[in-house]
Amino acid sequence: MNRQTLLDLLERVRSLNISPEQAAEKLRNLPFEDAEFAKIDHHRTLRTGLPEVIYSAGKTPAQVSEIFLRMTQMGTSVLATRANEVVFAQVKALVPEAHYYEQAKIVAYRGGERTSNGGPLAVLSAGTSDQPAAEEAAVAAECLGAEVERVFDVGVAGLHRLLAHRDVLDRARVVIVCAGMEGALPSVVGGLVGAPVIAVPTSVGYGTSFGGLTALLGMLNSCSPNVTTVNIDNGFGAAYVACSMLRQIQLGKSK
Amino acid sequence: MNRQTLLDLLERVRSLNISPEQAAEKLRNLPFEDAEFAKIDHHRTLRTGLPEVIYSAGKTPAQVSEIFLRMTQMGTSVLATRANEVVFAQVKALVPEAHYYEQAKIVAYRGGERTSNGGPLAVLSAGTSDQPAAEEAAVAAECLGAEVERVFDVGVAGLHRLLAHRDVLDRARVVIVCAGMEGALPSVVGGLVGAPVIAVPTSVGYGTSFGGLTALLGMLNSCSPNVTTVNIDNGFGAAYVACSMLRQIQLGKSK
Amino acid sequence: MNRQTLLDLLERVRSLNISPEQAAEKLRNLPFEDAEFAKIDHHRTLRTGLPEVIYSAGKTPAQVSEIFLRMTQMGTSVLATRANEVVFAQVKALVPEAHYYEQAKIVAYRGGERTSNGGPLAVLSAGTSDQPAAEEAAVAAECLGAEVERVFDVGVAGLHRLLAHRDVLDRARVVIVCAGMEGALPSVVGGLVGAPVIAVPTSVGYGTSFGGLTALLGMLNSCSPNVTTVNIDNGFGAAYVACSMLRQIQLGKSK
Amino acid sequence: MNRQTLLDLLERVRSLNISPEQAAEKLRNLPFEDAEFAKIDHHRTLRTGLPEVIYSAGKTPAQVSEIFLRMTQMGTSVLATRANEVVFAQVKALVPEAHYYEQAKIVAYRGGERTSNGGPLAVLSAGTSDQPAAEEAAVAAECLGAEVERVFDVGVAGLHRLLAHRDVLDRARVVIVCAGMEGALPSVVGGLVGAPVIAVPTSVGYGTSFGGLTALLGMLNSCSPNVTTVNIDNGFGAAYVACSMLRQIQLGKSK
Amino acid sequence: MNRQTLLDLLERVRSLNISPEQAAEKLRNLPFEDAEFAKIDHHRTLRTGLPEVIYSAGKTPAQVSEIFLRMTQMGTSVLATRANEVVFAQVKALVPEAHYYEQAKIVAYRGGERTSNGGPLAVLSAGTSDQPAAEEAAVAAECLGAEVERVFDVGVAGLHRLLAHRDVLDRARVVIVCAGMEGALPSVVGGLVGAPVIAVPTSVGYGTSFGGLTALLGMLNSCSPNVTTVNIDNGFGAAYVACSMLRQIQLGKSK
Amino acid sequence: MNRQTLLDLLERVRSLNISPEQAAEKLRNLPFEDAEFAKIDHHRTLRTGLPEVIYSAGKTPAQVSEIFLRMTQMGTSVLATRANEVVFAQVKALVPEAHYYEQAKIVAYRGGERTSNGGPLAVLSAGTSDQPAAEEAAVAAECLGAEVERVFDVGVAGLHRLLAHRDVLDRARVVIVCAGMEGALPSVVGGLVGAPVIAVPTSVGYGTSFGGLTALLGMLNSCSPNVTTVNIDNGFGAAYVACSMLRQIQLGKSK
Amino acid sequence: MNRQTLLDLLERVRSLNISPEQAAEKLRNLPFEDAEFAKIDHHRTLRTGLPEVIYSAGKTPAQVSEIFLRMTQMGTSVLATRANEVVFAQVKALVPEAHYYEQAKIVAYRGGERTSNGGPLAVLSAGTSDQPAAEEAAVAAECLGAEVERVFDVGVAGLHRLLAHRDVLDRARVVIVCAGMEGALPSVVGGLVGAPVIAVPTSVGYGTSFGGLTALLGMLNSCSPNVTTVNIDNGFGAAYVACSMLRQIQLGKSK
Amino acid sequence: MNRQTLLDLLERVRSLNISPEQAAEKLRNLPFEDAEFAKIDHHRTLRTGLPEVIYSAGKTPAQVSEIFLRMTQMGTSVLATRANEVVFAQVKALVPEAHYYEQAKIVAYRGGERTSNGGPLAVLSAGTSDQPAAEEAAVAAECLGAEVERVFDVGVAGLHRLLAHRDVLDRARVVIVCAGMEGALPSVVGGLVGAPVIAVPTSVGYGTSFGGLTALLGMLNSCSPNVTTVNIDNGFGAAYVACSMLRQIQLGKSK
Repeated sequence: MNRQTLLDLLERVRSLNISPEQAAEKLRNLPFEDAEFAKIDHHRTLRTGLPEVIYSAGKTPAQVSEIFLRMTQMGTSVLATRANEVVFAQVKALVPEAHYYEQAKIVAYRGGERTSNGGPLAVLSAGTSDQPAAEEAAVAAECLGAEVERVFDVGVAGLHRLLAHRDVLDRARVVIVCAGMEGALPSVVGGLVGAPVIAVPTSVGYGTSFGGLTALLGMLNSCSPNVTTVNIDNGFGAAYVACSMLRQIQLGKSK
Repeated sequence: MNRQTLLDLLERVRSLNISPEQAAEKLRNLPFEDAEFAKIDHHRTLRTGLPEVIYSAGKTPAQVSEIFLRMTQMGTSVLATRANEVVFAQVKALVPEAHYYEQAKIVAYRGGERTSNGGPLAVLSAGTSDQPAAEEAAVAAECLGAEVERVFDVGVAGLHRLLAHRDVLDRARVVIVCAGMEGALPSVVGGLVGAPVIAVPTSVGYGTSFGGLTALLGMLNSCSPNVTTVNIDNGFGAAYVACSMLRQIQLGKSK
Repeated sequence: MNRQTLLDLLERVRSLNISPEQAAEKLRNLPFEDAEFAKIDHHRTLRTGLPEVIYSAGKTPAQVSEIFLRMTQMGTSVLATRANEVVFAQVKALVPEAHYYEQAKIVAYRGGERTSNGGPLAVLSAGTSDQPAAEEAAVAAECLGAEVERVFDVGVAGLHRLLAHRDVLDRARVVIVCAGMEGALPSVVGGLVGAPVIAVPTSVGYGTSFGGLTALLGMLNSCSPNVTTVNIDNGFGAAYVACSMLRQIQLGKSK
Repeated sequence: MNRQTLLDLLERVRSLNISPEQAAEKLRNLPFEDAEFAKIDHHRTLRTGLPEVIYSAGKTPAQVSEIFLRMTQMGTSVLATRANEVVFAQVKALVPEAHYYEQAKIVAYRGGERTSNGGPLAVLSAGTSDQPAAEEAAVAAECLGAEVERVFDVGVAGLHRLLAHRDVLDRARVVIVCAGMEGALPSVVGGLVGAPVIAVPTSVGYGTSFGGLTALLGMLNSCSPNVTTVNIDNGFGAAYVACSMLRQIQLGKSK
Repeated sequence: MNRQTLLDLLERVRSLNISPEQAAEKLRNLPFEDAEFAKIDHHRTLRTGLPEVIYSAGKTPAQVSEIFLRMTQMGTSVLATRANEVVFAQVKALVPEAHYYEQAKIVAYRGGERTSNGGPLAVLSAGTSDQPAAEEAAVAAECLGAEVERVFDVGVAGLHRLLAHRDVLDRARVVIVCAGMEGALPSVVGGLVGAPVIAVPTSVGYGTSFGGLTALLGMLNSCSPNVTTVNIDNGFGAAYVACSMLRQIQLGKSK
Repeated sequence: MNRQTLLDLLERVRSLNISPEQAAEKLRNLPFEDAEFAKIDHHRTLRTGLPEVIYSAGKTPAQVSEIFLRMTQMGTSVLATRANEVVFAQVKALVPEAHYYEQAKIVAYRGGERTSNGGPLAVLSAGTSDQPAAEEAAVAAECLGAEVERVFDVGVAGLHRLLAHRDVLDRARVVIVCAGMEGALPSVVGGLVGAPVIAVPTSVGYGTSFGGLTALLGMLNSCSPNVTTVNIDNGFGAAYVACSMLRQIQLGKSK
Repeated sequence: MNRQTLLDLLERVRSLNISPEQAAEKLRNLPFEDAEFAKIDHHRTLRTGLPEVIYSAGKTPAQVSEIFLRMTQMGTSVLATRANEVVFAQVKALVPEAHYYEQAKIVAYRGGERTSNGGPLAVLSAGTSDQPAAEEAAVAAECLGAEVERVFDVGVAGLHRLLAHRDVLDRARVVIVCAGMEGALPSVVGGLVGAPVIAVPTSVGYGTSFGGLTALLGMLNSCSPNVTTVNIDNGFGAAYVACSMLRQIQLGKSK
Repeated sequence: MNRQTLLDLLERVRSLNISPEQAAEKLRNLPFEDAEFAKIDHHRTLRTGLPEVIYSAGKTPAQVSEIFLRMTQMGTSVLATRANEVVFAQVKALVPEAHYYEQAKIVAYRGGERTSNGGPLAVLSAGTSDQPAAEEAAVAAECLGAEVERVFDVGVAGLHRLLAHRDVLDRARVVIVCAGMEGALPSVVGGLVGAPVIAVPTSVGYGTSFGGLTALLGMLNSCSPNVTTVNIDNGFGAAYVACSMLRQIQLGKSK
């Protein structure tokens, strides 16, 4: 609710179009919808310019599919992350156009056309095992409208593999780097590019990898100052931040 | 060393201007300078478009001031973070134009004119005690060329204080949020804006704040998906990432 | 055993009604009952004015149902928390009036009538996934005699959802707030109300949520001073503390 | 800002007493005051019925004394916790009526008369070394208007010392228990009383006491369900929660 | 191999009964037996006066039963701890006299008659769920020859339950106390007795009980100085230490 | 207060020597003394047969010396552990017979004659740096009446140094082993002796020794089952437990 | 790509055999092969003189077998570690010569003949349960060409078992020591040999063994300075480092 | 004491040169010397071929200098690590030939001539602040007889700086890599060389670097299999392991 809407509302009070009681009520009624188990926040899309997202873990397939349906009814694109086959089946029953990205574990419905989104986004992964997180990031970013370039399996133990893709790194406006174990790849990439690097620690490893904690700590302590970090295995979060950056670039162009 | 420089070099080999041995040597000699105690990396500025930065902690004042001097001789702006009065005195003896920002603990030398940098950056702090980190972020970002708007002491225990500054939040292209204790402010801010939010946990607190670890964990687990996080008290890092984002916006405009 | 009972006993010794040996024995025999595997403490109800509670985890269904039966035989209300369907089946076989609250995982038998209990208790949850802990709190509090108002799915990333329920917050005498991930909701609620806030961290989240530890730490470090905290997922504990507070209010009224 | 104030304001708009622009401004201007380094929140007192509190750690003596002065000018009582002699000297220069409680490290100014506050509050400590936290709790509660009864040095290794004070425990409406090392005292007290117990872990101990973490964990895992916990050494927080409970009792009486 | 045996061996060398080479070999061949997967140490029994023990976890049933058989062939008592039904079945096939203690998860074979062992050992548990660890301790101690008195379900939230058993505590020469959650029972018991207290933290609890770590930390930080601690759920270890103490008492008597 | 005392008291009630009110009061008044800052527990000595001990850390020198004086007035031996020179000076001013053990940081007053105490106690240390903890254990045990044999600097990296002292190990009734770093010495000693081994982790080490935590963990996980553990640097605690064992041996002899 | 290859390439540019563009391309194309899901690094073998290794965990059997096949086609030996029966079945279908070492969980294909490799390598384990890690180390080292001597079940609680194998220790050029629980064996072995000791913590233990963390910490803090450490259960890593050492010995001989 | 010495001794018993008692005594008396506070182990030098080392931290300057003197009297080289100026002054007073390496904090006395030691050892550091650990490693290795090549300030954020030193890496037989913060350098170096890499985490960093723990975890989880790790800041330990490797190379040559 921006200042103009507020002024309009108050103007209507002054012009006796609505009563103070009605105005007070309107001031309280922001555009969210109350389902039995989840309050759906429709004005986030307006606020952020990005589609709605459902985090499926900890919700029943029935809950996910019902929220999914309601959101699609608003006309916007919808994503459900951390969704398994069962969730997909229930969503598809309600929203036949929904698509399942298996490795990324994302169910998506694309409401409008894809908007070109500020420039290419590079998504890198250190090893084969980091691919699920990287795919979550890449698919989510694509669903959020970004142009994505994937560079997978380029861990620091074989630098030449990474260096062979310097062209992708050079043209990316934002770089997402997924790595488990010691999580060193974002530091090396951060030293090669001028764009912001979003590091995604993955839970790949054993023993003292502590389910991704070691990779996370490594990324938070990166000696490259253009590295910032999200939670372990949070490919979606990295994609969301990256797309909010790309959107700012796009908004900057139009000014 | 970009592809064109490489082609030029190889062309000079073909045209017999230089010998293969000389070319091999040049291919190895990238533009960094060897001081006795620190290899200074002059081409980072070329690569990132951002000034050079010296992390003063763990270096002697003599080391900081010597590196500082060499860097200024390249004509670029220079920052020394985590610098105390002693460091400043030694730097000033060598570089009289250097300026000291006391609360931010930054010694800065501005080489060129300030470049307008992609739009305003908002820097928020939750409490009075978080101000040093917030000032480090704000001053560093200003030295890196950003237009900064400060909103301090707007912790979540008094929401109306934050909500009174929605205009600053609305126009910011990037938001840096510094908070200690439970570190909840970035989540609330993230819910209010569409721009990316860079969260800086501060070491403010006692007992189970664990020197900022609790704030860091809170930020990594933010329920707002546009939040990304840097190391504890790393105001400079947040500023650097923010400016690398703003620079992408600026680059986007010029296309 | 209060002072009066002691004096009565000693009086009986003086009046030669009982021998010193008998008195010594009585002084040792406080009213608890020895089952083979569990000493049942019947005088806790007298002491606290609250029903008996069985923590089912780590006990066999047979153990839970036998303790449950013995307790109901004392005439008081009985609760078994963390109870699954199997436990319920065995309890129901012995105590047909027992009821099962599925989401709360509570088996309850209400011995007497419900006592109005000091004023309304608000139970809030941040997200859909926090509902099991919130339901455990709400159902337990109802079984302990409280009047409960539920406000679910009002996380801090969408403040307007929370602010739409200020009336519930304003009239509550105690507020229980259940939140996982970064656990920021109690801080925001604590800033809005004057009543005490009991924070329940939930194990909702992934990666560095560490099974609720991050939410717990956030709550312990709340910048709102009226927040106090119980163990992870301990909805029952929060309800019990809340009801002990409400009972003090009720006792205060009667004076 | 309650609903009635809002309706009044809107009524004034309708009656053309103020313009929509003025009303919009008023809706944004909640009663907090902007100092250079701290936004002072004057309506917290209205909201909570408890005096203002300044956490001195991490603030300069000059900052504390200036905030202190401004708050006293509102006529309410003011507390500065974690204050040393230097802070007190500077506050006293501005507010001569301020008093210093040395062991509790609290500087206090009592604005109005002391309000009887819902019943007695018992403050217990396990050992001599836990006394600073216990005094912080006791003094703060007294400044917040509570009637406090102290029972110190009654650790669980000598149960008879605790049991000798059952009368105090029996009449308390809320019990604060401060303990370091293994933090067992709250569990034992919780088993003896029906009132809510607020446990304060202290940083007393060595080795694996981990600066109070062990005591905190013990309290969070208490087998007594009426125990709730605050941060390590947070005597003030315990007092604040206790007083918010006592205030509810008092409010309950007047209904 | 004590000094006398060594002297005898050297005497045999001097008297030319064996060659130096043979003697050197003997000096290297201490009495342990090499199985394919486990070196069985037969002289531990001689050294400690206590039966052999097999820790079954991490070994296959076949490995456990084979080691068990070999040990019984030495004539001494044998215990296999952490043994399930499958292990028992395989052991019983080889050693029909073996007995299975289900709750304690111990398979035992008693080689000789039971030696009265220095005085009674009290084994306490705080709650019903701590019983498996307590039974492991009690059964193991009985198999190692001790006279055991069990006092179960006497947690600190109901002190009178514990105090009703002061006679058992008073006559015990050593006390083993098993407790989960906050692990407060050993501190209280330690304050009531003069005998050494061996604390066994159990993995009972949830959330921040961290699988027994909280109980362990509480015990290590006990304010009762006669408390010493073993690993989480290590009922057997407590029994072993207790019996090594009782054996010293017995040895002391015979002098 | 044993059963006989209770019967006597009740007998006096019956014989009308004292009133029930007086008896009730006596039942509450157990023999502890209330100082302003510390409740002194005089009947612990009766209960345990061991002298009183004051833990000086966290107490002011004035507090320590006053408690010390009061205790000596009871005629028993007194120890103040973790005492520095300042504490000693103040104690000596009040109790001229007090003696200071510098390396052990113990101030002691020996009330009665030394009682031979159940057999020799061996105190071992792994390295020169572990000596302060070892001396605290040895001196405390001597003050508590034990006969102590010291074996210092026998770490596992040079096994022959330890093996040269097998005679001391063989005759000890209890063994205390102090070790920092990896804390391996108790395991090796535990394999050599049949007596109970009390392991004292010391804070010796750096980096991942974590102030003794690594040594503590090593000891808790000892593969020798006769090892039990106390808190880090808790030489006194080890001595106290050892002496409570030795006292049981002594008591056993006299039966 | 060594200097000579570079000079040759540049020579070809000078002699006009290839164009600068072609040369630039070649400089970028290092010898790795791009599969869809994994970039295979063929020149590691050239660089290290050791076979290729596939870490199977986190890869599908199909992925492992395809990478395995491609690697064997290069003629070198190939190992797949952490491989189960399913992986082996799929590999065998493609590479019939592959062999499965069950306890070590390694699938191996030996490309060339075994090279004698610098001297014997001793692999020790502390207990029967540590054998899987020890076998992983031993089998991997054998596949990498080393001569391995196994000494199993020689934990520190029975020193004579270890000392009986001093001959193996004395002739080993490198010693790998696998131990769980307190992880003390490497320290003792390190004190007995002059060769480097590679310590492998295993996840054997319970409670505070924390899945091998305690053993790891013990090894990192070893009082024997010739001990170095790898990750928990990382038998393969220890074998790899050991073989890289042995290879240096072999290379040293040939000079 | 090797087998031959044993046989000689036994031969002397047989030939009646010494009595069994004398032989038994000799078998117990291995060559270590007992100082009052430290048992000096002279036969370590014989066993390992490396000089004696004193860890100065936790020892008084008097203790260090006395041990130092005794060791030099054996004719071997001696090192005291973690030594400050005060320690050096006291050592120099007793051993005038002792030399102090300030940055490495090592006092050294070189007993014999330097032995060429198996090939060059490369010591790398990531940043200027890592230099103290790197110097400790380099100086210690030189004192232990190694030929050392230093490559400092070559962190992964500027890869070209590292790649410019490939020649040093290629010829090294062992590589020591010191790095703080995220500790990524060993992984990158491990991918470039075939020699073993010993990683030294340093305590350089802030916030979540946790005093070097993050770097340590990164190194333990290195994706390069030829990396092994020592304790935080343990430059000496790395040097010692490296020299034990180099010595094996040297021994290999002489065969």
